[in-house]
Amino acid sequence: MRVVYSPLHLGHELRLQTIMGVQVPADEVAGRAERIRAALEADGGFEIVEPTQHGEAPITAVHDPGLLAFLRDAWPAARRAGHRHDFLVPETIASVLAYEGMSDAFRREPPSIGGRAGYRALDTSTPIVAGTYAAARAAVDAALTATDLVLGGEPAAYGLCRPPGHHAARSMYGGFCYFNNAAIAAQAIAERTGEHVSILDVDYHHGNGTEQIFWRRGDVLYVSLHAHPDRQYPYFLGWPEETGEGPGVGANLNIPLPAGLSNEGYLEALDRGLDRIAAEPGSVMVVSLGFDTFGQDPIGDFALTTDVYHEVGRRSAAVGKRLVVLQEGGYHLPSLGDNARAWLRGAEGRPYDPQPAAGYTPGGTRA
Amino acid sequence: MRVVYSPLHLGHELRLQTIMGVQVPADEVAGRAERIRAALEADGGFEIVEPTQHGEAPITAVHDPGLLAFLRDAWPAARRAGHRHDFLVPETIASVLAYEGMSDAFRREPPSIGGRAGYRALDTSTPIVAGTYAAARAAVDAALTATDLVLGGEPAAYGLCRPPGHHAARSMYGGFCYFNNAAIAAQAIAERTGEHVSILDVDYHHGNGTEQIFWRRGDVLYVSLHAHPDRQYPYFLGWPEETGEGPGVGANLNIPLPAGLSNEGYLEALDRGLDRIAAEPGSVMVVSLGFDTFGQDPIGDFALTTDVYHEVGRRSAAVGKRLVVLQEGGYHLPSLGDNARAWLRGAEGRPYDPQPAAGYTPGGTRA
Repeated sequence: MRVVYSPLHLGHELRLQTIMGVQVPADEVAGRAERIRAALEADGGFEIVEPTQHGEAPITAVHDPGLLAFLRDAWPAARRAGHRHDFLVPETIASVLAYEGMSDAFRREPPSIGGRAGYRALDTSTPIVAGTYAAARAAVDAALTATDLVLGGEPAAYGLCRPPGHHAARSMYGGFCYFNNAAIAAQAIAERTGEHVSILDVDYHHGNGTEQIFWRRGDVLYVSLHAHPDRQYPYFLGWPEETGEGPGVGANLNIPLPAGLSNEGYLEALDRGLDRIAAEPGSVMVVSLGFDTFGQDPIGDFALTTDVYHEVGRRSAAVGKRLVVLQEGGYHLPSLGDNARAWLRGAEGRPYDPQPAAGYTPGGTRA
Repeated sequence: MRVVYSPLHLGHELRLQTIMGVQVPADEVAGRAERIRAALEADGGFEIVEPTQHGEAPITAVHDPGLLAFLRDAWPAARRAGHRHDFLVPETIASVLAYEGMSDAFRREPPSIGGRAGYRALDTSTPIVAGTYAAARAAVDAALTATDLVLGGEPAAYGLCRPPGHHAARSMYGGFCYFNNAAIAAQAIAERTGEHVSILDVDYHHGNGTEQIFWRRGDVLYVSLHAHPDRQYPYFLGWPEETGEGPGVGANLNIPLPAGLSNEGYLEALDRGLDRIAAEPGSVMVVSLGFDTFGQDPIGDFALTTDVYHEVGRRSAAVGKRLVVLQEGGYHLPSLGDNARAWLRGAEGRPYDPQPAAGYTPGGTRA
């Protein structure tokens, strides 16, 4: 399988993130993508290729052009405004309740960089740094290059996207995400094939952005397995009663899952999601692939082991659609490479040959 | 003049606040109210009284009962949920753009404490600590007791409210504010007099909460002088074109002001606001009084000196309405007591007799 990777993600260098008011070491670090790249290179069964540039049009096909403009301008504008930190995080966020009873006309992007960041942000845990925009654009290009490979005839391709994308909504960034790589890929597939497209989101978190973008679309099916928002980020979306509206009714399936979930419980939920996707027309499936479902992930609370990723990859491919697999979250660095190898080999129908990264025993404790 | 003060504010003990992703020493500290109380006691011309309890009904007359329930439950619920910090700040905020294109039915308060905080918060700079709810309730009672004094015949009374209130909207807290003391007082005045009520907001920041609460009301006039939201918190509201909707059209006057504003420029803007209030029927004016307009305030960027507060108080009283004066912001501790004395003496028509707090020279530099 081809793996689309760009070194531009290295410029999106995060050291700290602000969670519940406190700066803590960042989870969404460059080492994540580097671990996966190194493991796939060492495997020998994958070919690493660079993305080709696809321009802005596929981005603004799903995103507000204002989000693109904001992300492009944010860092230089913060610098010009004398911003003191080496990352930009908003001071306040345009809360839905701030405008209660006021017409939509009063919900506007203000001109200052602090105001713009707060208008478009979901949280304070998604800093913008000097290299964020270039990395986010490269992640989109990786997703679109993987899409090109699959639409060109390959049964599957993997975009090693960093930063991830599924929390980014039409006009908003957040949850470590800036552009929604999976939504951009799905839209490109819909446009170029004229078919329906299915998205399977197996990141630990609900992909609120993907849901929102395709909420009123009947031609893009979104199926997500995730930690129940009654306990976990993004809190506000991801409930089972969110099934779409208008032409999108029935094209959104949320499967929220409990803490401590086992491999068996996960595979049962997966089969439910894949049954829905198998019933959907269209020859291509986009996978939002997260490994924060792993038992040792520092953010997640599921109990999955590396073995299950091989099986998830196998069952996903067995639906019979071609796969555009795009990396989302996963924060336990020692296991990431092995988990990615297991998933992608499963999708290819190859056996999973454990080749643990240094210092890590699959399914066991840290060495 | 009577000064309504409750020691319960001391339980709202803030040491750190999170601004633009970084924890910094808190600005909205207990010493603010203590400095003002001490200065007014030393003055000799003020009588300190405790608030009487007014219950929940005056609060839910302007606030969503869900906000009251949240603020009451938040700290115990966070403790039960195993929250690790000694303050509660949300992980993510229900951004208006997160729901773009989705029906209002999907904008709901989630059950977890983290989700609830994020549903009702505007920012991460307004922590909830063990004593926040009791302090916020006591601040409301101080505002309502000052209201009682004025409706009982006194020409003016001062509620030394802490925490402040004017950023709190119908269903939302933020900007160091939990309940909107001024809005609760104005509503009580409207109910008990049957008259129109005017609110003059001379805090440095726009009172987005007060504006939102009375947005569609023609019987409560809101007039605010504040730093232009094109550069300053709350960023999203405070623009001059926000004049109210429905029955509230014309009952909202925003006067945004530039950085470096002098006493003269401020008094010109004040006269514009007071002219509008003088034209409004009703015998009572609520004043949201902030001293973050002071030249040395660590948050503000105006250049006002202590002298001007005496004049602002004098001109506000000269409109001829009785005054319910309620404390909002102001963060330069050494000047707070003197600035409050100057303002309140001006409102009483008494001369301003400089009696600087230790270590502080009015209008000059720090000693």
